[in-house]
Amino acid sequence: MSEPPVDAVETVARRAREAAAELSLATRATKDAALLLMADLLQESVERVLAANAEDVSAAEQAGTAAALVDRLRLDEARVAAMAEGLREVAALPDPVGEVVRGSTLANGLELRQVRVPFGVVGIIYEARPNVTADAAGICLKSGNAVLLRGSSTASRSNQAVVEVLREAAVRAGLPADVVQLVPGAGHEPAKRLMRARGLVDVLIPRGGAGLIRSVVEESTVPVIETGVGNCHVYVDRDADLDQALAIVLNAKTQRPSVCNAAESLLVHADVAEEFLPRVVTALQQAGVTVHGDPAFAAQDGVVAATEEDWGTEYLSLDISAAVVPDLDAALAHIRRHSSGHSEAIVTRSLEASRRFTAAVDAAAVLVNASTRFTDGGEFGFGAEIGISTQKLHARGPMGLPEMTSTKYVVVGDGHVR
Amino acid sequence: MSEPPVDAVETVARRAREAAAELSLATRATKDAALLLMADLLQESVERVLAANAEDVSAAEQAGTAAALVDRLRLDEARVAAMAEGLREVAALPDPVGEVVRGSTLANGLELRQVRVPFGVVGIIYEARPNVTADAAGICLKSGNAVLLRGSSTASRSNQAVVEVLREAAVRAGLPADVVQLVPGAGHEPAKRLMRARGLVDVLIPRGGAGLIRSVVEESTVPVIETGVGNCHVYVDRDADLDQALAIVLNAKTQRPSVCNAAESLLVHADVAEEFLPRVVTALQQAGVTVHGDPAFAAQDGVVAATEEDWGTEYLSLDISAAVVPDLDAALAHIRRHSSGHSEAIVTRSLEASRRFTAAVDAAAVLVNASTRFTDGGEFGFGAEIGISTQKLHARGPMGLPEMTSTKYVVVGDGHVR
Repeated sequence: MSEPPVDAVETVARRAREAAAELSLATRATKDAALLLMADLLQESVERVLAANAEDVSAAEQAGTAAALVDRLRLDEARVAAMAEGLREVAALPDPVGEVVRGSTLANGLELRQVRVPFGVVGIIYEARPNVTADAAGICLKSGNAVLLRGSSTASRSNQAVVEVLREAAVRAGLPADVVQLVPGAGHEPAKRLMRARGLVDVLIPRGGAGLIRSVVEESTVPVIETGVGNCHVYVDRDADLDQALAIVLNAKTQRPSVCNAAESLLVHADVAEEFLPRVVTALQQAGVTVHGDPAFAAQDGVVAATEEDWGTEYLSLDISAAVVPDLDAALAHIRRHSSGHSEAIVTRSLEASRRFTAAVDAAAVLVNASTRFTDGGEFGFGAEIGISTQKLHARGPMGLPEMTSTKYVVVGDGHVR
Repeated sequence: MSEPPVDAVETVARRAREAAAELSLATRATKDAALLLMADLLQESVERVLAANAEDVSAAEQAGTAAALVDRLRLDEARVAAMAEGLREVAALPDPVGEVVRGSTLANGLELRQVRVPFGVVGIIYEARPNVTADAAGICLKSGNAVLLRGSSTASRSNQAVVEVLREAAVRAGLPADVVQLVPGAGHEPAKRLMRARGLVDVLIPRGGAGLIRSVVEESTVPVIETGVGNCHVYVDRDADLDQALAIVLNAKTQRPSVCNAAESLLVHADVAEEFLPRVVTALQQAGVTVHGDPAFAAQDGVVAATEEDWGTEYLSLDISAAVVPDLDAALAHIRRHSSGHSEAIVTRSLEASRRFTAAVDAAAVLVNASTRFTDGGEFGFGAEIGISTQKLHARGPMGLPEMTSTKYVVVGDGHVR
């Protein structure tokens, strides 16, 4: 692959803007037809997609890529079928575009409506999983946005094959092919240009590890929606039901340790420490979890002494940091210091404690007597999710289709002047 | 004034975070009491504020500052009373914090609520008008946000005096003084540090001219809400009521030419050009407006030939660019090319034309048979306005109190695990 000409990214962005203007006026019927065609064509093209993917996988293996990464890169018939099914599910969701968010008739008779409209052009920068290509394209299309996809180079052949199929389906449905485009070129330069394409790209969403997200946030002049990092805590209160607490800690840590809503840190009220610590440590260890504990926890067999760094670490693995706190205030202070603002949970039977915790904790989701794993667009009933926002501007928490839109005010009068 | 120590901006930002944590839990009653006290104390302290302002004004005059700028800087009893009245009006508005935006009980029995919460710490960077100091502080306080104010150095003594009064009132109402702070230090460096204080400052709102806004957008790593630039068009359709059109063009251009929702460009459908051009040019010229016209307009007496640059210019003065377009599509194409995404108006009796215009124009506000001057928080019934957002993320159009908040999800279960 050679370096793209200087204006290659600008060229695709301009084409995306043109396509977005047309897509923003498309009816739900047209968009759903395109999504269903995309799904069908993807399944019909499974051999072509898998052949391209096999080339990516073999190149990654030859380059000595870690087995876990190769596994994330690999597609099979079931994964392609799941991509198609995802597109069909998005087609079944309500169209956010055109929703009247609020409206009134002003005292002077002017009719005011605030209406959902697409952003326009959305850029997605993501890492190895080629299934994101179809997922992101589907969500952007349904929300009326043209999408510029920048996947990782290791998945370039797979992404290319998937995008070709999606573009063909768009055209068959009567939409411009350029509603879905890959950002061309090798290396970091094209992604950097995408980040600086203010005025051409309306919003940028990075999906991937903390390093990717940080670099996009710092380098981008295009508005960014930050997603993903989750240093999630479970706080077991003095008034907790300890059976519930045990089940929630285990579920939050072990049900799927590699995702952002998995628990990374456990805080236990001192009054229940004597009873709860042996139980929770044993249960976690039996589930294969390494506990990185403060001195109280480290007194238990097999617990590793936590370093200061542990409290801020998103392990994404079968590890958990753990500390005893003297009271709810201390738990709140610890969380305020170390939280990434994703999901924080309290286990308690006390209404007062639950009210104080939910009011004081500053995070996208605050859970009472429930696993942090519930912070998820699917679990929340949003149907599809482009990511989980950990920033406060625009969208916070799981982002479904409405979060992929802006609004505009439509004001109708009959010659009104001030 | 000497340069602040390296960490002065970080120090005020950290104090703001502490204050914000407390303010976020304050009830509406406490916040309203603080706002009313601020208003009273501001009026009681009018001599002190005016004395400080007189020093700023005389320093500006000695520095040879333009008379218009000195005028914007100057306070008098009426302006201080208006600042106090503004604070009382904010006190009377509903508290956005705690509003349940949506909620449901999920299939598994989990109770889900999306609740409005303050951002936390808001930074405001603004130009000469010292009244912004009280306005912005009031809106931030009511929405539960600690504010870091960075005004212009020409107004530094006035801003200092106003902020001292506001802080004293906050303390008397039982809130931390640091809910309102000035960013210390001279020169551009403190503002730059504010723009890079990601993690300490949650959102930055520049209020001022295009140059200020551009520099904040480009240099900031803190999320920014872009406000203000308005290259607003009025399109007079073939099916317009020409009397209405005349009144709307005149109002949009001349009622207050210096503001962002004033019209800057006039487009007229060719079919009504012969009748409308002489009328509108005469009326505009009688109101003191210079018309910068395309060849069709330039055929009228006294019209200046427009250059390519005119179409993109926000004059903020008694000037307007004007062109004849062959049809609605041409008007839409012209607007798409030159719009700043603020307010765009059509004058028409055609339902079809109004539907096409409102659907296709990509702007914060699209107006039908109404002056662009209506795009305003006060006119829209929002009560208070921190600015008019011209970006698509988070808030678009006039920003009232709800737009100064984020949300969080509160999820309550009874031991729920996945």
